[in-house]
Amino acid sequence: METMSDATWIWYPGDFEIWLGNRFNNRRTERGAMFPPFWKQDSHWATVEFRREVNLSMPEKVNVRVDGKFNFSLDGHLLFGEPSEITVPDGRHILSFKVFNQAAPPSIFLDSPSIRSGNDWMVSFEDKIWIDEEGVAHGSGTYVPAGCWNFCSPDCPPSLFRLPSRPEDAVQEKKISDRSVLVDFGRETFGYLVLQGIRGEGEVGVYYGESAAEALDREHCETLDRFVLTGCRDFTAPESKAFRYVLVDLPESMEVSRFSMLYEYLPCEGKACGSFECSDETVNRIWQTSAYTMELTTREFMLDGIKRDRWTWSGDAIQSYLMNYYLGFDCNCVKRTIRQLRGKDPVTSHINTILDYSFYWFISVRDYYRFSGDADFVREIYPRMKTMMDYVLGRLDDDGFAVGKSDDWVFVDWVDFPMHKRGVLCFEQFLLARSLEAMAECARVLGDESGPDYAAMARHLLEKTDRIFWSQDAGAYMHALEPELNPQITRFPSMFAIIYGYASEEKKKQILQHVLLNPDIPAITTPYMKFYEMEALCSLGKQPEVLEEIRSYWGGMLREGATSFWEKYDPSLCGEEHLAMYGRPFGKSLCHAWGASPAYLLGRYFLGVEPTSPGYASWTARPSLGGLAWMKGSVPTPYGCIRIEMDAETLMVTAPEGIGHGKIIADGKETGIEGGQTIEIFK
Amino acid sequence: METMSDATWIWYPGDFEIWLGNRFNNRRTERGAMFPPFWKQDSHWATVEFRREVNLSMPEKVNVRVDGKFNFSLDGHLLFGEPSEITVPDGRHILSFKVFNQAAPPSIFLDSPSIRSGNDWMVSFEDKIWIDEEGVAHGSGTYVPAGCWNFCSPDCPPSLFRLPSRPEDAVQEKKISDRSVLVDFGRETFGYLVLQGIRGEGEVGVYYGESAAEALDREHCETLDRFVLTGCRDFTAPESKAFRYVLVDLPESMEVSRFSMLYEYLPCEGKACGSFECSDETVNRIWQTSAYTMELTTREFMLDGIKRDRWTWSGDAIQSYLMNYYLGFDCNCVKRTIRQLRGKDPVTSHINTILDYSFYWFISVRDYYRFSGDADFVREIYPRMKTMMDYVLGRLDDDGFAVGKSDDWVFVDWVDFPMHKRGVLCFEQFLLARSLEAMAECARVLGDESGPDYAAMARHLLEKTDRIFWSQDAGAYMHALEPELNPQITRFPSMFAIIYGYASEEKKKQILQHVLLNPDIPAITTPYMKFYEMEALCSLGKQPEVLEEIRSYWGGMLREGATSFWEKYDPSLCGEEHLAMYGRPFGKSLCHAWGASPAYLLGRYFLGVEPTSPGYASWTARPSLGGLAWMKGSVPTPYGCIRIEMDAETLMVTAPEGIGHGKIIADGKETGIEGGQTIEIFK
Repeated sequence: METMSDATWIWYPGDFEIWLGNRFNNRRTERGAMFPPFWKQDSHWATVEFRREVNLSMPEKVNVRVDGKFNFSLDGHLLFGEPSEITVPDGRHILSFKVFNQAAPPSIFLDSPSIRSGNDWMVSFEDKIWIDEEGVAHGSGTYVPAGCWNFCSPDCPPSLFRLPSRPEDAVQEKKISDRSVLVDFGRETFGYLVLQGIRGEGEVGVYYGESAAEALDREHCETLDRFVLTGCRDFTAPESKAFRYVLVDLPESMEVSRFSMLYEYLPCEGKACGSFECSDETVNRIWQTSAYTMELTTREFMLDGIKRDRWTWSGDAIQSYLMNYYLGFDCNCVKRTIRQLRGKDPVTSHINTILDYSFYWFISVRDYYRFSGDADFVREIYPRMKTMMDYVLGRLDDDGFAVGKSDDWVFVDWVDFPMHKRGVLCFEQFLLARSLEAMAECARVLGDESGPDYAAMARHLLEKTDRIFWSQDAGAYMHALEPELNPQITRFPSMFAIIYGYASEEKKKQILQHVLLNPDIPAITTPYMKFYEMEALCSLGKQPEVLEEIRSYWGGMLREGATSFWEKYDPSLCGEEHLAMYGRPFGKSLCHAWGASPAYLLGRYFLGVEPTSPGYASWTARPSLGGLAWMKGSVPTPYGCIRIEMDAETLMVTAPEGIGHGKIIADGKETGIEGGQTIEIFK
Repeated sequence: METMSDATWIWYPGDFEIWLGNRFNNRRTERGAMFPPFWKQDSHWATVEFRREVNLSMPEKVNVRVDGKFNFSLDGHLLFGEPSEITVPDGRHILSFKVFNQAAPPSIFLDSPSIRSGNDWMVSFEDKIWIDEEGVAHGSGTYVPAGCWNFCSPDCPPSLFRLPSRPEDAVQEKKISDRSVLVDFGRETFGYLVLQGIRGEGEVGVYYGESAAEALDREHCETLDRFVLTGCRDFTAPESKAFRYVLVDLPESMEVSRFSMLYEYLPCEGKACGSFECSDETVNRIWQTSAYTMELTTREFMLDGIKRDRWTWSGDAIQSYLMNYYLGFDCNCVKRTIRQLRGKDPVTSHINTILDYSFYWFISVRDYYRFSGDADFVREIYPRMKTMMDYVLGRLDDDGFAVGKSDDWVFVDWVDFPMHKRGVLCFEQFLLARSLEAMAECARVLGDESGPDYAAMARHLLEKTDRIFWSQDAGAYMHALEPELNPQITRFPSMFAIIYGYASEEKKKQILQHVLLNPDIPAITTPYMKFYEMEALCSLGKQPEVLEEIRSYWGGMLREGATSFWEKYDPSLCGEEHLAMYGRPFGKSLCHAWGASPAYLLGRYFLGVEPTSPGYASWTARPSLGGLAWMKGSVPTPYGCIRIEMDAETLMVTAPEGIGHGKIIADGKETGIEGGQTIEIFK
């Protein structure tokens, strides 16, 4: 007998994420005011049909839980009311539930020995059934496999979802004045402030800070709360916040015996987690701080920063996904974020309103497929990729280039020099080409030939971009065409030409010399674009230079006292200057996912592991010490971890059971490795 | 000083209707099971910004009510928390509220001497504001005027909406058995059953019937309820139902002293209501029964039937709108229904999944504009007309004809003979041409030249349709091309060619003789298509024949005991045969809006009033007794009623103050009439 998976709540795929995303994104606050996104927020389908054929050898009673108003029909015959238990006779039968819920995704949970809700059920938001004069039903609805996650308790429908939390103590309480206490939790954290042993009543003022300076600045701290407490002994803040420090102003009449918090977190789901350790203690601390930064920003979704920002952003998320493939390998969080970012049709703006962020979204689907091998997700999301690409292609300029229209945000990066953002940017064309390649790959995976020839479109765009933007004189891709080629040179287009393999070997050399290692080209000051800059250098074999930069740039943040990595870091600033951004003294996020890229770089380019076929059906390990005396670590895959240990003399690689054929590349030599094997290579 | 209208709750236009439509359409039941629509149900925008510039001569305190989580910003500066009162300083200021509500449309209510929420506020579902490195905000969102209705109490946001009701008594209670009572409310009605003076407890069975036979048939009645009552003295059913009769089965232990109901209704909003009275008492009863049928089916929306159906259907609704222009002139209910039927983008099916019903939807907007002159509504709905027309045009066949694809329902009419519904139907082409003309007219009203030349498309389609489908031999438009011209002749295409003015004078004569007055062409058996058949005859001056048919067909239903008009009526049936449809003994709706067409025909073609410019800026009255000795009545307009009194010798027409120039046409002579005038014409 076939083993069945546990029953789980099911819904229309993507709808839980869209619904949760609305709650999530609308929880951001700015100095006590709610701060929702500036783009369209979609909703779940309010009415959904769930359908499955079953074949029973004997009749079965099925427990039914439904989140919404519903009906149930057996072979097209409706039952009275809303049954909490149904009896399905033996033989073949069609079960159908139709559920309406305006406030949360319609969802069902069914459990019996052989009938369980799961993603083998089909769902539709328009069943298009109609009856003719004779009462004969005709149907032409479109059905897709149901969505689900881990809601395996009948009492916990997705609408009751919240992340778990655990109590954490403060490390220090400091009296600032008669009525004010500064509480220090020792490092950046996220959760719900708790006041214990309250005596007295009145209004409490709470000022959160990622730094002590921020918490102490009641007028300028980014997040704050006011609570009127009456007659409670313990109090937990209703909303979660990011902070290391909390300044609490108590009213005259109140005493609090203890301040603590509930740390809110996403439980680990992956079969295996990445790890990294090496001979350099600074690098180890950098890896750990990166991993912690990712722990804090990987939640309901992969978000940008946890203090001010707390939204999903596509350009930030694609980096989080990549780091995640070398940390927790949480595929569900990646899928949730991809679904949430996309929302629903019609497409009325770029993702997050940003031109480049639409492109990163396409590319992230391709990345996800490469690491996970999850073709089911490609099948689910591809229709929304197509309509998104229709939107993108509908906004190209007359020459077929992607440009920012007046209602588009062209982001590229936060820079401190005047950078051209209008006209045709070479950087954006490379992203579009990569997006078209992602479309082509997904179409190929699904055998879909209904769309345009995306691969050919990518080739034509690349040919044109290379011809127009490459400057032999400069040894660089020029930044902008507006409509003449602008003399400005930035690192951005050249970096991406290398990462995406668009530059020839000759051009790569030129770029390395004239751009990447050229101090006259304005430096990158965000960890966001550092991610790609370091990746470009690694892919050119410059691990030693990258290691140096990791030590200096990320090590620099640690020396400034960082307990998680920042949104932006300029080593030339000092003291509280580091905290300012957006014209606000504490505007900078001190826990920003894009700050964590060493977690990716060390796994991908030092441990050197990457899939070469989707889902590690084949893979390579090309470890590089880059100047370290030794390193050891593990890279998660769908089958468990690949383990690497390396020093100057020895390289040991262990592959998990079930993984596809691997290839170890060391000192220019290739050695095969199969699942379950450990290979040791001596120099 | 400018007089201000009262403050009213405001929301994103159309969102209240879409949200209410979901509740409304999901309230349908079939034998106690919920019965939702088979098509996509959209939702309101979950996050909406409300914005307005104000200019105050002195500071003002404004009371704020918001349905949802929200923020408020004054000139871009966010206030802490969710203020219930704001103070706006003197001078020019931008007020902005951003509201999130997943369960019901985000909406606000503001009241102060000079700041009141109303449709002079602008709203957006994507404000597309973003900040640059310096914290400077840029915005490119699209804003439209807010939607509102009559929610003028701060305590009653739209999410609390429900129709009012009033108590009504039963006219008879009859003991059917020891424990069963048949309650008769005297005529078709709609509302909540009430049990008064309950003694005892237990489960009560309730079987509703539009006929006594239906209520008495517990196994086949279309709607029923079961209530478990414990310890209550009075009980009101939680859901409204349609019925004339109710069979109540009481448990052993229970006595009920009285059965009554709460009659639920839409309060009259129009400035004036239509009336009709004439020398023929049967015709008077037909008009009154039509008006009552429309009262029962005109509710949150204009729905098809009140018992089984209870959904909005575009083909039914367009007739309700037209009747309404000669009855209550409730423009808000027309607009609500048009918005609800359309839903939101993307368009994934025809309206109600029916090819013809998409066309009626376009045409109904044009009709509404003609009767109301409401260009604001055209401006609101036109973007959704364009995307709907894009969908329609994207599904034409290679020859540019509208055809039913495999997932489309091609309805035309319920007929008792085999009728071709696939291939190219001439009927559908006329509807498409009229839809294209509606697009052209709306584009012209708005001065929009961005779309295709809809008028030219309509001309080309008509030319082609006429050439292919007109048969000189038959003196008729042929029914279907599949791919050869099928020999079947139906009344449908020829009727519409006359009504829409597509047939030449010569062809009209041929059609009258060979189709309309030809008993060999299968008769129409639904009041639905009778509406158009009678209209075609009236427009050819055949009022006497139409009056005869009204007396015979609608009079026939009255003779069968109808207290409201039916979904279908075949005079050749008898007794309970009249109640059956869809293969079910009580499947037929005995209160169906499309049954009420005499209300339209008598106003439009006997009183003879119609607008000739939008909103009665000009109009004609061309009264026709059609064989009646006398008639008098009134036709509502945006300015009040036009009154007509006529007998064989005298015609008196009174025009309301403010209406545009009118023209009375009697005996081939034209007489002008202005607002406020009464003109008397003697033969």
